[in-house]
Amino acid sequence: MIEGYERYKTQVESGLHRFLPDETMVPSSVHRAMRYSACDGGKRLRGVCCLMTHALFGGSPDDALPMACALEMIHAYSLIHDDLPCMDDDDLRRGKPTNHKVFGEAVALLAGNSLLTHAIETVLRHTPKTLDSKWIIKALEELVYASGTCGMLGGQVMDLEAEGEPINLEHLQEIHRRKTGALILASLRTGAILAGADETALETLTDYGESLGLVFQIVDDLLDVTGTTEQLGKPVGSDEKNAKATYPALCGIEASRRMADDELAKAIKALEGFGERANNLRQLAEYVVYRDN
Amino acid sequence: MIEGYERYKTQVESGLHRFLPDETMVPSSVHRAMRYSACDGGKRLRGVCCLMTHALFGGSPDDALPMACALEMIHAYSLIHDDLPCMDDDDLRRGKPTNHKVFGEAVALLAGNSLLTHAIETVLRHTPKTLDSKWIIKALEELVYASGTCGMLGGQVMDLEAEGEPINLEHLQEIHRRKTGALILASLRTGAILAGADETALETLTDYGESLGLVFQIVDDLLDVTGTTEQLGKPVGSDEKNAKATYPALCGIEASRRMADDELAKAIKALEGFGERANNLRQLAEYVVYRDN
Repeated sequence: MIEGYERYKTQVESGLHRFLPDETMVPSSVHRAMRYSACDGGKRLRGVCCLMTHALFGGSPDDALPMACALEMIHAYSLIHDDLPCMDDDDLRRGKPTNHKVFGEAVALLAGNSLLTHAIETVLRHTPKTLDSKWIIKALEELVYASGTCGMLGGQVMDLEAEGEPINLEHLQEIHRRKTGALILASLRTGAILAGADETALETLTDYGESLGLVFQIVDDLLDVTGTTEQLGKPVGSDEKNAKATYPALCGIEASRRMADDELAKAIKALEGFGERANNLRQLAEYVVYRDN
Repeated sequence: MIEGYERYKTQVESGLHRFLPDETMVPSSVHRAMRYSACDGGKRLRGVCCLMTHALFGGSPDDALPMACALEMIHAYSLIHDDLPCMDDDDLRRGKPTNHKVFGEAVALLAGNSLLTHAIETVLRHTPKTLDSKWIIKALEELVYASGTCGMLGGQVMDLEAEGEPINLEHLQEIHRRKTGALILASLRTGAILAGADETALETLTDYGESLGLVFQIVDDLLDVTGTTEQLGKPVGSDEKNAKATYPALCGIEASRRMADDELAKAIKALEGFGERANNLRQLAEYVVYRDN
């Protein structure tokens, strides 16, 4: 059990319900599509990370909640677009039909765009005006940088272009540093920025967050594989047509598991200077490594 | 000739070249795709409007240039997505192959997302830090509101859903108020906000901008029709399969032309209180009505 995780998760869930446009608003199709994907559960890792670091630096929860929800909206938009026929062409996401299967491609495309747009609006409109405007601008800049071509969007492009191509470990890590790592790192940093954390503290969070993002992706890849097969020590999935590059495919399951453990150790070491008050971030890193979904 | 139009347009063009990611940056495909659509000419109406109202209220050009370029990036992203197969499925835009015809659907989708994201980043990163942070936040809030489901994105959804359906004038106006009007209005208001304009001045700009947006769309529809046919007084295009609703289709060409003239008069009347210094905005409204493309 991670200290406060469930409480933060509940805050994020209720923030999303509050900040997302009402389904009855015209045009209702797009608002229903936004909520269909943004309110469908999930771990809320990004939103929780933001609230955790915000609390770590003494911030009050309401100040970071709009940012925590914006992170989840951006994550949801990226999944809607990833599932589209011109991308991964997936019919199911978390056991439910994907957004375009329910609302059609056009509305799904626009619902994704709307979640990104609404994420920014949520931060601008709902972050309390009592907070230093310069902090809001700095945090928002980190959010969009992490979502752009140097971060998530760049990672999505690189991932597409790597499909079916030979790829080395360095390249794979760069794809994931951008595609998933950048937004996880931004979750940690924006929460801290909105609480007025200084540059030294932010650098520590960066060290922690880079390891956390990497470990998250390695374990994600491992869960995809070990959910269906157990081929210890041997590259997996490398014979599939158009296989996506993954850590197990490239290094084998055992080596991937060792990499995850090494990164976990690094993440925990990075937090040394924060003392006991960062216990929940330590527990979070352990959870990410030893989770089963 | 509109006072200063060409000068402002040149500033916007060079701002776009400066603020957009370099094409050589990894992943280069998406950066090339972003520039392909954002640097392909066009009237730069939105960017110019922003710089004009900014100057009207005594702002210095550099303070509004990032916002002017952001408006053009958002306009470009909306066109890329509008042209996608799941939307209008267009092969040509301004006489050139559409973005997805050159870069493929996936990269075009992501290039659109990247332009939206980069628009926000451009304002946050490049608006001079000497400017009041509260003005930046307020202007950005207007930009994203106008781009979201209460504005442009909502208009795109409503436009899709109206295809092939019976539609009245009020509904058509609401679609266009959102789809094109909202961003034009935001262009005028954000420029003024970044120069510290007060609420009364902003309300005047809203009156002007609402008429300008409407007139822009009516004339756009008229140009589409009169470019190919001349059927004065009779609804046009209403027999086409899946025809998009347009002013000429609904009211006929002559009545549409009269509506455009009426809105032009309203736009010019709204500016009365601004005196001679708003001459370029008057000329702009006339240009929008009497333009030939």
